[in-house]
Amino acid sequence: MIAPVELSQAYRLLNHGPTVLVTAAHGGRRNVMAAAWSMPLDFAPPKVAVVLDKSTFTRGLVEASGAFALNLPCRAIADATLAVGNVSAKDPEHADKFSEFGLGAFAGSALDLPLVEGCVGWLECRLVPEPHNQQAYDLFIGEVVAAHADTRVFGRGRWHFERADDSLRTLHYVAGGRFLAIGEALDADVERASRAPRLA
Amino acid sequence: MIAPVELSQAYRLLNHGPTVLVTAAHGGRRNVMAAAWSMPLDFAPPKVAVVLDKSTFTRGLVEASGAFALNLPCRAIADATLAVGNVSAKDPEHADKFSEFGLGAFAGSALDLPLVEGCVGWLECRLVPEPHNQQAYDLFIGEVVAAHADTRVFGRGRWHFERADDSLRTLHYVAGGRFLAIGEALDADVERASRAPRLA
Repeated sequence: MIAPVELSQAYRLLNHGPTVLVTAAHGGRRNVMAAAWSMPLDFAPPKVAVVLDKSTFTRGLVEASGAFALNLPCRAIADATLAVGNVSAKDPEHADKFSEFGLGAFAGSALDLPLVEGCVGWLECRLVPEPHNQQAYDLFIGEVVAAHADTRVFGRGRWHFERADDSLRTLHYVAGGRFLAIGEALDADVERASRAPRLA
Repeated sequence: MIAPVELSQAYRLLNHGPTVLVTAAHGGRRNVMAAAWSMPLDFAPPKVAVVLDKSTFTRGLVEASGAFALNLPCRAIADATLAVGNVSAKDPEHADKFSEFGLGAFAGSALDLPLVEGCVGWLECRLVPEPHNQQAYDLFIGEVVAAHADTRVFGRGRWHFERADDSLRTLHYVAGGRFLAIGEALDADVERASRAPRLA
């Protein structure tokens, strides 16, 4: 089931550094691309940062519409995640990467955005225009205005991948078609660290 | 063994979204803090982005020295990673978090920076001053001028955690003291995605 995530906890979706699918739509066109370079930027109001290269078709849709979504893919759609990152919708052969690679889409709740079916988290973002960052660094900032997650792996503001099938684990891109899936949880202990031998 | 990483491949250290330890030094003081919010920003010259809150002591050292390092902690030092993120060196009781939490340091090769022993990757960065980003978003940009990695888990521009002990896996912060360790590798296949049923 897909459930809303409180805006105060939206950053938790990205906190562990997953690769994302960036989606946007404008003027009857929609697109999806993969991006390994994104991060939370603020808690309240929640903001995110993502790098969108000048060569991408998605970037134009974001600039024209003033909105983008970050969708968090999982192992089950690793092949499509790689595929949409390998080709550009600027090439007429790849004009609709959703249908080409078997990715379904559903409408955002707050913004006019296509969200990717089969992902485990979604952040709907309104672009915060920063022309210098966009031009000099390909860096785009968005304010998160709605967030959603798959309740099988996210609830009460926390990921709990251990409770669900491994196919729902987030993807973390390495290179050359290789991803790392997120792994097991561990609870760190400050008291244990405080008992470490003091160094000179 | 610690080996240099070619600058053209430095982004690969951060590509999978690990939590980092940020280190800096100035005027006889040094500090280390944890940050879940960082990402690569460019390939060549390699750049990174990291969020440094105004409340942190490290931020002042970065602004004064014009340099910072991103160190990639692993499971073996999860307790210390949490601990240095929980207290500030602005509090005189925590004036040297390295020694307090048993973290050794060694000198950077390119910049006057303390690098954290027991990490699995290190990026030495020269601050690219962007006063608006720093003030409005706590966003700091650095150019990577040297990078290093533990050869047990990184080589030929790739992570290969599967070849080494699990204690060397990178950490990805969730909340409340919980980390996720990076998990298993999977190779995605564009051809498989292209054979997916086309959607209307």
